Amino acid sequence: MALNAPTDRTRVNRLPKRGDYSLETIYGILDAAFVCHVGFVVDGQPYVIPTGYGRSGDMLYLHGSAASRMLRTLAGGVDVCVTVTVLDGIVLARSAFHHSMNYRSVVVLGKARLIEDDAEKTTALRAISEHIIRGRWDDVRKPTAQELKATAVLTLPIEEASAKIRTGPPLDEEDDYALNVWAGILPLSISAGEPVADSRLAAGAKVPRYLTYERGGKQADRQK
Amino acid sequence: MALNAPTDRTRVNRLPKRGDYSLETIYGILDAAFVCHVGFVVDGQPYVIPTGYGRSGDMLYLHGSAASRMLRTLAGGVDVCVTVTVLDGIVLARSAFHHSMNYRSVVVLGKARLIEDDAEKTTALRAISEHIIRGRWDDVRKPTAQELKATAVLTLPIEEASAKIRTGPPLDEEDDYALNVWAGILPLSISAGEPVADSRLAAGAKVPRYLTYERGGKQADRQK
Repeated sequence: MALNAPTDRTRVNRLPKRGDYSLETIYGILDAAFVCHVGFVVDGQPYVIPTGYGRSGDMLYLHGSAASRMLRTLAGGVDVCVTVTVLDGIVLARSAFHHSMNYRSVVVLGKARLIEDDAEKTTALRAISEHIIRGRWDDVRKPTAQELKATAVLTLPIEEASAKIRTGPPLDEEDDYALNVWAGILPLSISAGEPVADSRLAAGAKVPRYLTYERGGKQADRQK
Repeated sequence: MALNAPTDRTRVNRLPKRGDYSLETIYGILDAAFVCHVGFVVDGQPYVIPTGYGRSGDMLYLHGSAASRMLRTLAGGVDVCVTVTVLDGIVLARSAFHHSMNYRSVVVLGKARLIEDDAEKTTALRAISEHIIRGRWDDVRKPTAQELKATAVLTLPIEEASAKIRTGPPLDEEDDYALNVWAGILPLSISAGEPVADSRLAAGAKVPRYLTYERGGKQADRQK
């Protein structure tokens, strides 16, 4: 897959070995998380808001109420930063100083565009839905014209982006390896519990298969 | 616990029922997550960077390499937004439109201050360490003067903050309840796997007890 050349704004300067600019890596991380954090500026103050998202090719999609301040601000074509983080573990070193986390994160910079066309909007909403629970879209009632109107959908091209990744064991000072301190990794992942049925479920509605294949936090299964 | 009055910048305007300004709620969410997302502005461009953090009373602590751009920028006293998000589940409705997520998030706005004093710095680093793995600090080699110098630690007062929370089942259109579509919640949580020992572990170093009491994603156990 193509490279996404780093810019002065996306290059990982500290610990440059952790930087990765390949689209394959970037897309893989974007596809592995449920929530992104969107950064934007209002009157000089940065705001960071969590929200669901989707990806299709080199497009990132965000959505929300047409009345939301975040969506209205972003629709104005302001500079935005969308960050996605997957936490893979806690790295326990022998010294406090060398403790760390294993993670995969992506930063996407750019300006979002409001999608006006209803067909394009529906395609984007489908991508968001499929990102969060693949297979769900086909089962549910699709948006009405009124619901589409009440929903703002934005698209952000993945053109200026970088990934930052830490993997592997702790890296301790040579002298510290002799210490009688347990060191290693505590792996972390998002796992799903038993689906909780709504109290007003129609008779005969069964738990869909796509709620089980994601369980156990196997992020790889979520990748497109 | 005291109320933290909302300001025009932290008030939850859309779906105001989801807003919560009590310090008890805000602290509880801050104590339940491993990673925060820090928003700051450089040359008009917002950046959102994930990082570990800690809390002690009404102080939030951030740390990193003294060489990090983020830490150097924040130490300059710029406006910052620190957001913490705990994802509790995916809310599956009968219509695409009413899908949602259950989550707890906190936004803290303000200006961070660089901690210069070594004793205060060590206290803050201990708070960060204890936040991530309670009990770890006492086991490990403490920072040397040189390591302290290489670490920048910032403190951000939790003075202008709000929480936003969604819980509960999907809320569908009345007509949609008759649809033969499964609806409910897929609970999500962070869970820990088996600790992976470092390959250079000293003979006799045992897995500490604090790596087991957090397992299973029981966030409540993490709260102070």
